[in-house]
Amino acid sequence: MGIHTYFQSLNDLERIIRTPGKFKFEEHSVSAHSWKVVQYAKTLADIEEKHGVTVDWKKLYEITSSHDYGEIFIGDIKTPVKHHSLELRAMLQQVEEGIVAHFIDEHIPEEFQAIFRRQLREGKDESVEGRILEVADKMDQVYEAFAEMARGNTEKEFTVMYRNALIQIKSIKLHCVDYFLQHILPDLVREGSRSPIDIAQITNEALSS
Amino acid sequence: MGIHTYFQSLNDLERIIRTPGKFKFEEHSVSAHSWKVVQYAKTLADIEEKHGVTVDWKKLYEITSSHDYGEIFIGDIKTPVKHHSLELRAMLQQVEEGIVAHFIDEHIPEEFQAIFRRQLREGKDESVEGRILEVADKMDQVYEAFAEMARGNTEKEFTVMYRNALIQIKSIKLHCVDYFLQHILPDLVREGSRSPIDIAQITNEALSS
Amino acid sequence: MGIHTYFQSLNDLERIIRTPGKFKFEEHSVSAHSWKVVQYAKTLADIEEKHGVTVDWKKLYEITSSHDYGEIFIGDIKTPVKHHSLELRAMLQQVEEGIVAHFIDEHIPEEFQAIFRRQLREGKDESVEGRILEVADKMDQVYEAFAEMARGNTEKEFTVMYRNALIQIKSIKLHCVDYFLQHILPDLVREGSRSPIDIAQITNEALSS
Amino acid sequence: MGIHTYFQSLNDLERIIRTPGKFKFEEHSVSAHSWKVVQYAKTLADIEEKHGVTVDWKKLYEITSSHDYGEIFIGDIKTPVKHHSLELRAMLQQVEEGIVAHFIDEHIPEEFQAIFRRQLREGKDESVEGRILEVADKMDQVYEAFAEMARGNTEKEFTVMYRNALIQIKSIKLHCVDYFLQHILPDLVREGSRSPIDIAQITNEALSS
Amino acid sequence: MGIHTYFQSLNDLERIIRTPGKFKFEEHSVSAHSWKVVQYAKTLADIEEKHGVTVDWKKLYEITSSHDYGEIFIGDIKTPVKHHSLELRAMLQQVEEGIVAHFIDEHIPEEFQAIFRRQLREGKDESVEGRILEVADKMDQVYEAFAEMARGNTEKEFTVMYRNALIQIKSIKLHCVDYFLQHILPDLVREGSRSPIDIAQITNEALSS
Amino acid sequence: MGIHTYFQSLNDLERIIRTPGKFKFEEHSVSAHSWKVVQYAKTLADIEEKHGVTVDWKKLYEITSSHDYGEIFIGDIKTPVKHHSLELRAMLQQVEEGIVAHFIDEHIPEEFQAIFRRQLREGKDESVEGRILEVADKMDQVYEAFAEMARGNTEKEFTVMYRNALIQIKSIKLHCVDYFLQHILPDLVREGSRSPIDIAQITNEALSS
Repeated sequence: MGIHTYFQSLNDLERIIRTPGKFKFEEHSVSAHSWKVVQYAKTLADIEEKHGVTVDWKKLYEITSSHDYGEIFIGDIKTPVKHHSLELRAMLQQVEEGIVAHFIDEHIPEEFQAIFRRQLREGKDESVEGRILEVADKMDQVYEAFAEMARGNTEKEFTVMYRNALIQIKSIKLHCVDYFLQHILPDLVREGSRSPIDIAQITNEALSS
Repeated sequence: MGIHTYFQSLNDLERIIRTPGKFKFEEHSVSAHSWKVVQYAKTLADIEEKHGVTVDWKKLYEITSSHDYGEIFIGDIKTPVKHHSLELRAMLQQVEEGIVAHFIDEHIPEEFQAIFRRQLREGKDESVEGRILEVADKMDQVYEAFAEMARGNTEKEFTVMYRNALIQIKSIKLHCVDYFLQHILPDLVREGSRSPIDIAQITNEALSS
Repeated sequence: MGIHTYFQSLNDLERIIRTPGKFKFEEHSVSAHSWKVVQYAKTLADIEEKHGVTVDWKKLYEITSSHDYGEIFIGDIKTPVKHHSLELRAMLQQVEEGIVAHFIDEHIPEEFQAIFRRQLREGKDESVEGRILEVADKMDQVYEAFAEMARGNTEKEFTVMYRNALIQIKSIKLHCVDYFLQHILPDLVREGSRSPIDIAQITNEALSS
Repeated sequence: MGIHTYFQSLNDLERIIRTPGKFKFEEHSVSAHSWKVVQYAKTLADIEEKHGVTVDWKKLYEITSSHDYGEIFIGDIKTPVKHHSLELRAMLQQVEEGIVAHFIDEHIPEEFQAIFRRQLREGKDESVEGRILEVADKMDQVYEAFAEMARGNTEKEFTVMYRNALIQIKSIKLHCVDYFLQHILPDLVREGSRSPIDIAQITNEALSS
Repeated sequence: MGIHTYFQSLNDLERIIRTPGKFKFEEHSVSAHSWKVVQYAKTLADIEEKHGVTVDWKKLYEITSSHDYGEIFIGDIKTPVKHHSLELRAMLQQVEEGIVAHFIDEHIPEEFQAIFRRQLREGKDESVEGRILEVADKMDQVYEAFAEMARGNTEKEFTVMYRNALIQIKSIKLHCVDYFLQHILPDLVREGSRSPIDIAQITNEALSS
Repeated sequence: MGIHTYFQSLNDLERIIRTPGKFKFEEHSVSAHSWKVVQYAKTLADIEEKHGVTVDWKKLYEITSSHDYGEIFIGDIKTPVKHHSLELRAMLQQVEEGIVAHFIDEHIPEEFQAIFRRQLREGKDESVEGRILEVADKMDQVYEAFAEMARGNTEKEFTVMYRNALIQIKSIKLHCVDYFLQHILPDLVREGSRSPIDIAQITNEALSS
């Protein structure tokens, strides 16, 4: 019993591979994904600050660093399941939260329980920080799916992932989203111009949908 | 649309790793597990036949060869989730069945749909074949968990998996279960005698529980 | 001594990689291959039954599930060796059978020896089941070689493997072969249309040879 | 040119393995390490706050998330080199900083250069945040080396790493160091009691040195 | 056609794993093995020279660097096969030599064919260089098997491999064999003293057999 | 203390991956690279001999077989660092030599120290053997970079590596360089003609630069 249990369990997420099952040229662990999300979110928040938005850095730190910890208990459940029915999705989230709550009760010393509950909550709320997390998380799907498409991976799943992530990002109102769409995404698309898959067209369709 | 989609998807199960997250000396794909279950089940059925039991080999073939196909859609969801609540478990099974049914409707030619529905059903019913499948599936948990314990893997998950699988096997009434407990398990336990973990004691506790 | 030795050895086949040496985008273990053969054979047999052919499901189960067990002893010997001379090929098969026979004598309890001898015999005889196994085994070569060609692997070995497997399949008289050539292979070829390798032409050449 | 170059380069750190060369039961990427450091640092900072210390969360976020980015350019240079001579060490750090500065000049848009310079600076200064980073970084060496020793890895390098990291942590004046030594480390040591290596003794020697 | 074909094929040996099938903590490619044999042989030859023996360095270079090239064609055929019958062994060697000869005829320009024939011949003859190669090759089996035993790998195959390699080395009359047995092996055995396997006893039995 | 320490450390180089960080379709260990260099150098020396040049085979053996041993201590430091400044490069080489010297003093018995010092020296001097080693080492960069480009890897690093290696080779005066440029390289370039990258043009630019 103690924070040691939490710290040690972090290693497990280096052994959970994203998009399980599908052929990938490059595999990514949940740990590496989480770290990239932390990095994207930092720069996205910097952009918000440049536009005068106040960022609660402590909150951003808490929610981005732990946002996929629950996958220790439920794995990276495949997207089709996640979206199969709203009912299932709600149920899964409820279960994940139940297990996390149970984990905190059992392993985290009482004086830290409130902190861990806050840190391991679902962070994607309507606050600036919650929206930044949502964008950063989707951005990593864009980067992961892009890397597969750019190397000629024709698995439909990656095209779908790329398109859906862009549509989701586009729908979020943040200065950093504008910056991403105008200054970062074009560089990405340009790099993919030698791919057998027409990434530019998929991108345009997603952005104009 | 066609059986090709089914055949090609089988490759995905070689990329889904069992017991995701936990440290393992030896990793197993769902494909390899499925094949071992096919092999165990065949010998278990041979033992039943030796005792005069009639085995429906076609049914046994169907349910053992495809018993984990649904993991293509939901991955190897971690045990804690599977057992967290009966409600969730039922829900998950319902969803898995829903996706499988949807897959058959969409991809399998009409003339084969009845066959695929029968093949991809949950096979662990009360028939001889269903119980043999249940035993064979648990036997592979015994072998996988044993291999970790024998090499000194102290992850609690493997001890729990080993114990629970034995308890489940013991509870099933089949001639082959008697054979397994009397003639196969003792050889296994003997091999584990050099392990830092007391496998013999864990085994005895499980069998007398 | 006992069936335990057999069961435990099954794990070794998850560590034997097919087509050793050659560069592959996707590696396949002998275990995963064996499981896919079991799956293909089941559907091929279903097709035969639809045409009124009687299938001995127990025999089919036995010969498909174990058809590559001998590779535990001799590995996946490279194709050039297999076909280098008829003399060597016969010699290798003789040795493999000798080692398997020795294994059964030494490890399988007497009451099961007849069963294991039947199960581990070379199954590709002239019976319906033997021919189905032959087709299923070659079909997996088609799928494995196709997946490499579709991703742009220019190793000559995979083109040769794909072509030879098709020629072999085509030469076998079974209803399921007709079904495969008319309803499954075209879906496969269509999927490969974006490959830098002209899979359609290689397919046509093989089928008209 | 643009932040895209930075974001995309983050993937490279998932391919750089820590402690290259040495036999390890468990490999860790620099990405996963970085993410664990972010997590440890967050809890360490929580502990400081509980003791009334003010934490600059933005600064902590910046320096912990990027603290090993420079390894993209110089790899995880082996410890013996790092410590071989003070002169070399200083030189290496100078070069790493030079390459990072060059990277920022070349790829980061001017309006973000100041931010990236701050973020990619060597963060282990004498501030609270700098010291927390130092502790978090060494804590991961403790965890990584412990996991090897607990599984019986007798490579001397891991014992040395474990001992040196503890000595370093102990020397840093922070409330969270006291907490780590009193409440986290003992749980770790207890878990290692079945190891063939006497982890308790190595720990005691390090703490009393 | 040309030496390019030979040079490029060398990569294949990095993908052929030694002792296929068996569980190993550490895998070794044929390439890495070949390189270690080159290194051992060099030092063994240095020892011979110190005792006044004349070494033909060009010949030693030729036979050690290429001694396992034939495995490109036949893989690392499992030991049981190699030794199953003298007849098979002779047959296999004949086939390997036949394929190598065929390869040289087809791919190596005529002016280099004599050189490649000499280089790719079976080098383990009765000359000093041939015997050094034999010792160096067996020494790597000693090191590989030792590393598994020292980490607690209880696969019988490694004990057998270690013992047989020692017996073979001991039977070869060379100054460097004396040096190995008196000055190198004892260091190895000492290192293995914490293993659950009694390496010292296995060593003593092999040396006194 | 003893040669055992040296022999055992050779395994570490199988765990050090070349060009760390960058995405590669095919990974190469330093061991496999070293072995390929040994092989190339042998044939290059054969070509020199054909032109009447005297080759010191013992020296060639010594310097090629060990030419990257120092990477055990400093890893495969990334190219940008190596070339960042002449000062750093000189410094790094000095440190590597210092550590190697220290290793010899500490672990190699006195009677062998002179031999190991000679063997582990930087071998790329102006002698025939030193120049052959330089060519062989660069040739492996050509082969490794080519294999990535031929499969469509668009990482700039591999184009740069390929071009620079060719330029370096071209600048060395040896008969075998002429042979390589006239008889080996054209075969390589021809094979790459299906790549999305224009390898022929990159080659021509490098050769005419």
